[in-house]
Amino acid sequence: MTNWLDILAGINEEKGSTALRSQPLYVLIHNRIKEAIDDGRLPADTKLPTNRELANLLKVDRSTAARAYAELANEGCIESFVGRGTFVASSRPGRNDPFESTEPDNSISWPDKFSRASQTVYEMLRLEQANIGWQQEVISFAGGIPTDESYPHKDFERILEKLIAAGRSAEMYQYSPNEGLPALRKEVRKHLAKQGIDASDDKLLILGGSQQGLDVVANILLDPGDLVVVEDPTYLWATCNFKSRGARCTAVPLDDQGIRIDILEAILQRQRPKFIYVIPNFQNPTGITMSYERRRQLLLLANQYQVPILEDNFVGDLRYDGESLPSLRAMPGSENLVIHLGTFSKALCPALRLGWLVAPPETMPRLVIAKRSSNLTTNSISQVILAEFLKEGLYEQHLATIRNTYRARRDAMLRALHKELFILADQQGDRTRITWSRPHGGMFIWLKLPDGLSSRELLPYAQREGVAYAPGDVCFLSQEQSECLRLCFIQLDEANIAKGVKRLGKAIRSYLEDVSNKSLSNRSHLMGTGSHSFI
Amino acid sequence: MTNWLDILAGINEEKGSTALRSQPLYVLIHNRIKEAIDDGRLPADTKLPTNRELANLLKVDRSTAARAYAELANEGCIESFVGRGTFVASSRPGRNDPFESTEPDNSISWPDKFSRASQTVYEMLRLEQANIGWQQEVISFAGGIPTDESYPHKDFERILEKLIAAGRSAEMYQYSPNEGLPALRKEVRKHLAKQGIDASDDKLLILGGSQQGLDVVANILLDPGDLVVVEDPTYLWATCNFKSRGARCTAVPLDDQGIRIDILEAILQRQRPKFIYVIPNFQNPTGITMSYERRRQLLLLANQYQVPILEDNFVGDLRYDGESLPSLRAMPGSENLVIHLGTFSKALCPALRLGWLVAPPETMPRLVIAKRSSNLTTNSISQVILAEFLKEGLYEQHLATIRNTYRARRDAMLRALHKELFILADQQGDRTRITWSRPHGGMFIWLKLPDGLSSRELLPYAQREGVAYAPGDVCFLSQEQSECLRLCFIQLDEANIAKGVKRLGKAIRSYLEDVSNKSLSNRSHLMGTGSHSFI
Repeated sequence: MTNWLDILAGINEEKGSTALRSQPLYVLIHNRIKEAIDDGRLPADTKLPTNRELANLLKVDRSTAARAYAELANEGCIESFVGRGTFVASSRPGRNDPFESTEPDNSISWPDKFSRASQTVYEMLRLEQANIGWQQEVISFAGGIPTDESYPHKDFERILEKLIAAGRSAEMYQYSPNEGLPALRKEVRKHLAKQGIDASDDKLLILGGSQQGLDVVANILLDPGDLVVVEDPTYLWATCNFKSRGARCTAVPLDDQGIRIDILEAILQRQRPKFIYVIPNFQNPTGITMSYERRRQLLLLANQYQVPILEDNFVGDLRYDGESLPSLRAMPGSENLVIHLGTFSKALCPALRLGWLVAPPETMPRLVIAKRSSNLTTNSISQVILAEFLKEGLYEQHLATIRNTYRARRDAMLRALHKELFILADQQGDRTRITWSRPHGGMFIWLKLPDGLSSRELLPYAQREGVAYAPGDVCFLSQEQSECLRLCFIQLDEANIAKGVKRLGKAIRSYLEDVSNKSLSNRSHLMGTGSHSFI
Repeated sequence: MTNWLDILAGINEEKGSTALRSQPLYVLIHNRIKEAIDDGRLPADTKLPTNRELANLLKVDRSTAARAYAELANEGCIESFVGRGTFVASSRPGRNDPFESTEPDNSISWPDKFSRASQTVYEMLRLEQANIGWQQEVISFAGGIPTDESYPHKDFERILEKLIAAGRSAEMYQYSPNEGLPALRKEVRKHLAKQGIDASDDKLLILGGSQQGLDVVANILLDPGDLVVVEDPTYLWATCNFKSRGARCTAVPLDDQGIRIDILEAILQRQRPKFIYVIPNFQNPTGITMSYERRRQLLLLANQYQVPILEDNFVGDLRYDGESLPSLRAMPGSENLVIHLGTFSKALCPALRLGWLVAPPETMPRLVIAKRSSNLTTNSISQVILAEFLKEGLYEQHLATIRNTYRARRDAMLRALHKELFILADQQGDRTRITWSRPHGGMFIWLKLPDGLSSRELLPYAQREGVAYAPGDVCFLSQEQSECLRLCFIQLDEANIAKGVKRLGKAIRSYLEDVSNKSLSNRSHLMGTGSHSFI
C-alpha cells in the first residue's frame, strides 16, 4: 500500500504544476497508474481505491477518476467487479451477480451530471425555493393565483353534464391536434379578433398555459449564449426558462410608463438580442402598464433593429380602470414582429392549463414541433370544456363579474396601505419614503421600502405577524437585494386584505425600528430566509 | 445614384477577395458607406436602399445589412424613418407616425433568428412532417394511438357525475402542486409498488404525459454537445427533444434480445454519455423486449461507468404473453441509477396527458424546477378523474379487457402478414426475405423488406392501395434509408387489419415487381414523399 500512496502523492504533485495543464487530468492519472502496473509497483490483483476514494485522494471530480479507470480497463490493465471493487488485472475471474452487494460508492454522482444551465437556474431559485416555517394562520399576499370562489365551477359542471348527456364525452379523451382543438381555436380566434388581433389558422397555437409559450419560443429562438432583453424586474419563471436554454438575459429598467426606451435603444445599438420579452399590461411583478407612446417606440425600435418582441399578456383581460390600450400585436406593423402570448389561467381558472400564442406564420411550423417535443398535445378535456364555455358567451360575463370583485379588492388594499403606512409614506423624498404602485388592472401591487432596506430582511418580522408576500429580489436580474415586495390583491376578500396589511404595517414598523436602533448592524444573519413559493 | 452603384460594386468586389475574410462582412459594408458619406459621394439626405434591397444587391443576409446600417445609425451617419426609408444624416427631422405605412421590407427575417438546435430538429423532421395526399378511404397502421372504443368513457362519465354530485368539482379547477395531486400520487405509488418500484414521495413526479418526462430529464442533464446513447431505431420524439437541447445522440443497434451490450460497452469505454435512453418493453418502433440478462448487463455497465439510465416504459402494462420481466427500476442496485418513465396515455387514454417519473431523490428538486419551467403544473381535471379511477380499482379491470382486445388484434395482424407475405417471406436467407417482429405486447410490429429496398419508396404503392404505415427511416439515427416500416396493430378491428394487410401485400408485391423490372433504375424520383404523421 505504501507504493500506492507514493503514486498518489506523485500525481497530486504533478497535478499542481502548471506545466502539465495542457494534458487532461484523467490522462495524467491513467499514465501514472499504468506505469506503476507495468513496472510492478502495483502487482496483479492489487485492490485499487474506488472511484470515490480515488477522486477524494486526488481532489479531482469523480467523473475524472472514473474516466482514468475506464481507460485502464479498456486497455485491460485493471478490472472492476461490482460488489468487490477494482483490481490490477490478472486472469479474468467470472463475474458474480453484480447486485447481491452493490456498493453505494459505485452509484451515480449526480452533481457531476447536472447540466450547466440547470445549475444556473437552480442557483437563481435558491431564494425562491427556500421556505420558512410559517405559522398555521397566515394571510398570504405571496401567490399569483385567483381565488377558488371566482372560478365558474357551476358553468363547467353544467357544460360537463351537457356534453355527457349529448354523448359527446368521447371527444374529451382522444388526442387533440398538436395546434389545438379546432372548436377551441375558433373561439380563441373570435376572442382575439375583438382585441384587433388576427389569429387566423396559420398564426395561432393553443398551449398548455402561457408558461409553455415561453418554453416553445425559447426552444425555437435560443442557442446557448444568446441574449434576451427582459424588463427589470420581470417574471421569474420566464428568465428561468430562457436561462435553462443557456441564454443570457439583459435587464432594462422600468419607469411608470413601462420599459425605458432610451436604455433599450442603447443596448440594441451595441448588441443583437434574439428577442425582447415584455409584459405590457399590469406587469408582473410591478403592476405597471406600458403607455401607448412606449408601445409605439418599442415597435419602432424592434422594427429598426430587426429584433422580435415576445409579448406576455397574462392578465390583459383584467382591467379595472384607466384607458384600454392595444396589445403590441394589435398595433399596425407588428404582424411579423411580435409573438403574442395569452392565457385563461388568471382571468378564468388556472387548472385548465390553457393558453395561446399568436405568431408570424413563418415561425409556426417550428413552434408546433417545439410543442410536440415538449408534451405532444394539450389536454383535450379542458379544451372541450373551455370551447363550450366560450361558445356560450360566458367568458365576457365572467370577466364583468370578476373585474368588479378584483377592483374592489385592489381598492381595499390601496386603502389599507394608505391607512397603515401613511405616516411612513408621508416623509419627504422618494428615497426615504415607502411607496407602492396603483395598478389599473391585474393582480399585483409593488411596494418599495426606503432605500437600503431589504424586503427579505423584513420576512422574519412578517412571519412573526403572520403575513406573507413575495420578496422582490427574485424578480430582479440587476440586484442581489431589493427594497421591493410584491403583494397579490385578488386572492383574499376585503376583510382579510385589511387584516393582512395591518400585520404588514406592524412588521414594517418593527423592522424600521430595529434598523434605526442599529440592532441590525450585522444584518447578514437575517439573510437566506425565503418566501412562500409563488407563481 | 451612379456613386451609389460604384460603392456597391466596390463592396461586392472586396467581398469576394479572401484577404478580407478576417473582417466581418457588416464592418466592410459599414466602412465603405461611411467613407462615401465622409468624402461627399453620398451627400446629406441621399436615400439609401432598404435593408432588403441592400442585402439583395450585396448578396448578404438581411441581418448583416441591418447590422451595418445599425452601426452607421449609431454613429449618426444615417437615419432611418419607418415609412420613408433610410437617409444620409442631415438635420434630424421629427419622426412621423412610424406605423401609417410600415414597409414590410423592415420586418424580421426569421430564418436568421431560429436557433441552431431547432434547425437541426426541423431538418430531422422534414421526412416525418411531409404528408402525401391520402385518398379518403385509407386504412392506417401509421399512428401509435389506442382506439376510442377502448377508452373507459362510461367510467369517466360516472366519476365526473359522482364528483359533481359530491360538490367536489371545485378541486378540479385549482392549480395542482408542481409534483402532482396528492390523491393521484398515492394511487400511482400503489400501482408502481405492485411492480416492485418504490415511488415514495421524494422519488415521484407526476407529469403531463411521458413526453414531458423526456423533456425535464433532458433539461436537467443535457448541455449542448453532450452525448446521449439511444437504441437504433428508437422513438423519434425522444431524439428530437435531446437534440433540441443541442445534445448529440449515438445509436446502439438492437437484436432480438434488445440493446447490443457489446457495442454499448465499446462506446462507454471511449466516451462519457450523460445518460442511456432505452425502451425495454415492446420497444418503439420494433416491439422488441429486452431480455432479463440484457437488463442485468445494462445495469452493470451503467453502474461500472457511472452513466444513468433513462427507462421509458410507455406500454409496459400492455403485455399479451411471454414472461413478465422486471423494470430496470425494479431491479436491485438501480435506485440511484435509473430514471423511470411511465404514462397512462397508451394503456388508458391519451387525452388525459398524464404520466409519471420515478427518479433518485437527489435529482427531484431539479426535475420539479424543470417541470415548472416547462408548464408550471399539470392539469388538475385529469388528475382528479384518474385518481378516482385508480382508487376504484378500475385500471386493473380495464387492462384485463384491452389486453384481450389487443392480443387478438396482434394475432390477426400476424396471421394476415403470414397469409399475404408468406411466399415472399419464405425465400432463403434473411437478406432477401421479408421478415417481421412478433411482439409479446405493446402496439407495434416491425416489418423489414429485403435488403436494399426502401419503405419510403413503397409509400406511393401503399397510397395507391389505400394503406398507411410509418416508414422506418425516421426512427434510425444510423441510416438515411430503411427497409423497415412500423405497423400499429391496436387501432383497428380484426376485419380492417386483414383488409389493410391485404392492401399492404399488394403494394409490396407491385413494388418488388417494379424493382426487379428495373423500372426503378432511377429510384430517386420516388423519394421525398412522406407518411401520415405519427406519434
